[in-house]
Amino acid sequence: MRKNDNHHVVSESRLRVRYAETDQMGVVYHSNHFIWFEVGRVDLLRQLGFSYREMEQECKCHLAVVDARCKYRVPATYDDEILVRTYIKRVRGSLVHFGYELLRIGDGDLIAEGETTHILIDAKKKVTPFPQKYLEALRNAIGTPKVEAEP
Amino acid sequence: MRKNDNHHVVSESRLRVRYAETDQMGVVYHSNHFIWFEVGRVDLLRQLGFSYREMEQECKCHLAVVDARCKYRVPATYDDEILVRTYIKRVRGSLVHFGYELLRIGDGDLIAEGETTHILIDAKKKVTPFPQKYLEALRNAIGTPKVEAEP
Amino acid sequence: MRKNDNHHVVSESRLRVRYAETDQMGVVYHSNHFIWFEVGRVDLLRQLGFSYREMEQECKCHLAVVDARCKYRVPATYDDEILVRTYIKRVRGSLVHFGYELLRIGDGDLIAEGETTHILIDAKKKVTPFPQKYLEALRNAIGTPKVEAEP
Amino acid sequence: MRKNDNHHVVSESRLRVRYAETDQMGVVYHSNHFIWFEVGRVDLLRQLGFSYREMEQECKCHLAVVDARCKYRVPATYDDEILVRTYIKRVRGSLVHFGYELLRIGDGDLIAEGETTHILIDAKKKVTPFPQKYLEALRNAIGTPKVEAEP
Repeated sequence: MRKNDNHHVVSESRLRVRYAETDQMGVVYHSNHFIWFEVGRVDLLRQLGFSYREMEQECKCHLAVVDARCKYRVPATYDDEILVRTYIKRVRGSLVHFGYELLRIGDGDLIAEGETTHILIDAKKKVTPFPQKYLEALRNAIGTPKVEAEP
Repeated sequence: MRKNDNHHVVSESRLRVRYAETDQMGVVYHSNHFIWFEVGRVDLLRQLGFSYREMEQECKCHLAVVDARCKYRVPATYDDEILVRTYIKRVRGSLVHFGYELLRIGDGDLIAEGETTHILIDAKKKVTPFPQKYLEALRNAIGTPKVEAEP
Repeated sequence: MRKNDNHHVVSESRLRVRYAETDQMGVVYHSNHFIWFEVGRVDLLRQLGFSYREMEQECKCHLAVVDARCKYRVPATYDDEILVRTYIKRVRGSLVHFGYELLRIGDGDLIAEGETTHILIDAKKKVTPFPQKYLEALRNAIGTPKVEAEP
Repeated sequence: MRKNDNHHVVSESRLRVRYAETDQMGVVYHSNHFIWFEVGRVDLLRQLGFSYREMEQECKCHLAVVDARCKYRVPATYDDEILVRTYIKRVRGSLVHFGYELLRIGDGDLIAEGETTHILIDAKKKVTPFPQKYLEALRNAIGTPKVEAEP
């Protein structure tokens, strides 16, 4: 059973490790995992029917990160293909909480797990509730288990 | 009272926000805070009498990150001068746990707080205990309170 | 006629602009274009039948950049899909010279054009000639025109 | 004789190579040099009496990069202290052309030389001439030779 089987929608994004993302330890530098989480987050939103780019433009608002954490299991290395699995853990008012798994496609190894919490802020940096259509889309993404295809 | 008043050694590093570190929200992109933590971590080690560069070369070992987290309080913006306060929370066997505060020098605002946990690994990526001299230096850095000068 | 119609092999890589790659001007920060060139370069090598990762491991050598330049035509923006067209301009001894075009897939706009020159160096950082099989693959990639499908 | 002895004002910025800036070749990844150029550019402007941050806010304009190039001489490595020497090569209408040298402070080695060309654009991304006070400050920075202290 997969850890995120109790979440309804899980998006899967693929990316390949760039040379620029490695460091002299010969592995991916640890701040890049948070950038990959963002790749997954945007893809999940797209899969829910809206683009983050449009949301920023439409409601002049941004999803500001208030908390980010990552547990590193095994190092990712140059040229690895990475699967980013993203799901929504919680939505409430103007807050949304995402969870992530990074898997190496070659051997299925779990590279890292993480989570980020965001609040919606308007153009004046004030916390603002999600417009109804976004709130519904986000809420619908949390739910009953759904069997996912293996990567 | 400052949160880290119960830690003996607190290093203070200064850096200025680079244009490359901002994003289209007009603030510093959140993965950069982890890079700043690293700047602080290396300075703290230097202050304890050893350079991380030499440690890597001498013992052919690396401090691999196993956990990283950050709470974002207020956004850092372009050209801000940032103070990185770094301290050691815990040292045990081959594990070391650092804490960080990022403060804006201009107004003293707390930008973010974070922590990272690392394990020492050798050239074959095996967990290895700290060489005695490093262990002692790290342990001595944890201790009784010491009043710090305000930034 | 396309600028690179007189080159035989042109690889085409696709990527999507990441939020982390934007800056507060609201466009992609200019150093990222060089990272995208690298994405194209690695894909071109893969298309020629060898992976840069394996080459580094096999011959304990690296392609060190000695010159890089980029002309920026129109800004790339967040979430744009980018096509990286990469071709080889010159190969000689231990030197290889790549050319690049970055195009926005949505409207076909030319984002930027660039080139990078590399020399092969061994584990001791000495300039070293390309192993025969790599040299041939690289040389075969330069040649007579070939009509490319439009992006 | 130093290459930039025929330029009046040369700013000198210091920075220390971050772990995040290295790659698995064990040296600084080549796109970072352009970020360091920006550090130098902003410091040169500050030295001329205005901050780039204020300029962006005051005239709602940006210096967009239209051309960037770098010649890499010797690799920079982790923890090196780098001196960025920046000077102005040319100013004309809405265009400014900067030159850079990156030197390793430890041994004085020339790491790289580069240049970037920028045009001033307004909030609507239209090319716009420099406000008089900026134009004068920039022009005054070009001029007769001035002996510089060695790093």
